[in-house]
Amino acid sequence: MKIVTISREFGSGGRELGKRLSEELNCDYYDREIITAIAERCDVNEEYAEYLLTHNFPSTANISMRNSFHIPAILQTTQIQLLCEQSNVIKEIAKTGRDCVIVGRNADLLLEDYCPFNIFVCADTETKLQRCRDRASKGEFMTEKEMKKKMKKIDKNRRKTRSMISDLPWGDKQTYNLIVNTTGWKIKDLVPLVAGFVNKWFEE
Amino acid sequence: MKIVTISREFGSGGRELGKRLSEELNCDYYDREIITAIAERCDVNEEYAEYLLTHNFPSTANISMRNSFHIPAILQTTQIQLLCEQSNVIKEIAKTGRDCVIVGRNADLLLEDYCPFNIFVCADTETKLQRCRDRASKGEFMTEKEMKKKMKKIDKNRRKTRSMISDLPWGDKQTYNLIVNTTGWKIKDLVPLVAGFVNKWFEE
Repeated sequence: MKIVTISREFGSGGRELGKRLSEELNCDYYDREIITAIAERCDVNEEYAEYLLTHNFPSTANISMRNSFHIPAILQTTQIQLLCEQSNVIKEIAKTGRDCVIVGRNADLLLEDYCPFNIFVCADTETKLQRCRDRASKGEFMTEKEMKKKMKKIDKNRRKTRSMISDLPWGDKQTYNLIVNTTGWKIKDLVPLVAGFVNKWFEE
Repeated sequence: MKIVTISREFGSGGRELGKRLSEELNCDYYDREIITAIAERCDVNEEYAEYLLTHNFPSTANISMRNSFHIPAILQTTQIQLLCEQSNVIKEIAKTGRDCVIVGRNADLLLEDYCPFNIFVCADTETKLQRCRDRASKGEFMTEKEMKKKMKKIDKNRRKTRSMISDLPWGDKQTYNLIVNTTGWKIKDLVPLVAGFVNKWFEE
């Protein structure tokens, strides 16, 4: 079974790369689907689940000490529940035995028993800002400062949730098979190149 | 002109990847040749030049304050001279206008005006140890502890020489186009995959 996981900096194009890669490899693709499943199981609104899983996650210290002034204990509990459910959903995806690409959510660590091919996607700040501009919905406007703040906040949260389950920091070279810096690339041009690595890795 | 630079952790197989990549791309290859040129120009023994460039490099603070107890000032001066000459040699290689692969020596930074494709090669400790064992010359024996110490020392020196010319740390994702973790790979299998990235990057 081929499992490819994609971790990524916000705005680096990791999600697009994952989606296109799943088409190239002709396999399942999981990203937002995971949030939908979690929300259903925890009986919360999907947007709310996503918000809690990607924003203001308390640090490990805050969780253990329950001393966060920013997030009430009840919300922290919900966040932990959502995180556990996320882990369950991802493990169930792997148990189907079907080839897949999973974007984000520390799937690389959660599924390490399945020896997935783990990719990290990054880019320089200007590339990420431009991507955010290009993908902003009609009517949505953020200043550059606001965009940078958002990018920083989301990546900080990814770093935090990772630190809860790993000693190695988010984005650490040792954890991934391949790190692709998308600066200067069209994502679609990267797809066959990355697929080459994946196919060779899983070759019998 | 295509310039590919390869930075690498000691024992990760970066040198072999570079050599094979230059054959695949049918272009020049520079590694040890740089040391030969530097030694000639500085009128020092080649082994001595290599030793000074890869061992016990004083930290930036030590250089500016001349307060290292480990390395006499005269040796520090020689080290700086060698480093300057190294920079000259690398820039002259680029000026020839010929496609090439350059291994190590911060060529990615020194040649940034030429927009090279920059690769970093890493691996897990076990892979690097095994590689060191496989490549040890006949009669050469090191305990695992000694090998680890050597690996650490050489990489520490690479980190130091880099910190003299860059704010971003050695191995930082932002600096490279591609980071390849060779754990679990045969280097020769990686060559066409990496070449795919390089060729697409330089495609007109």
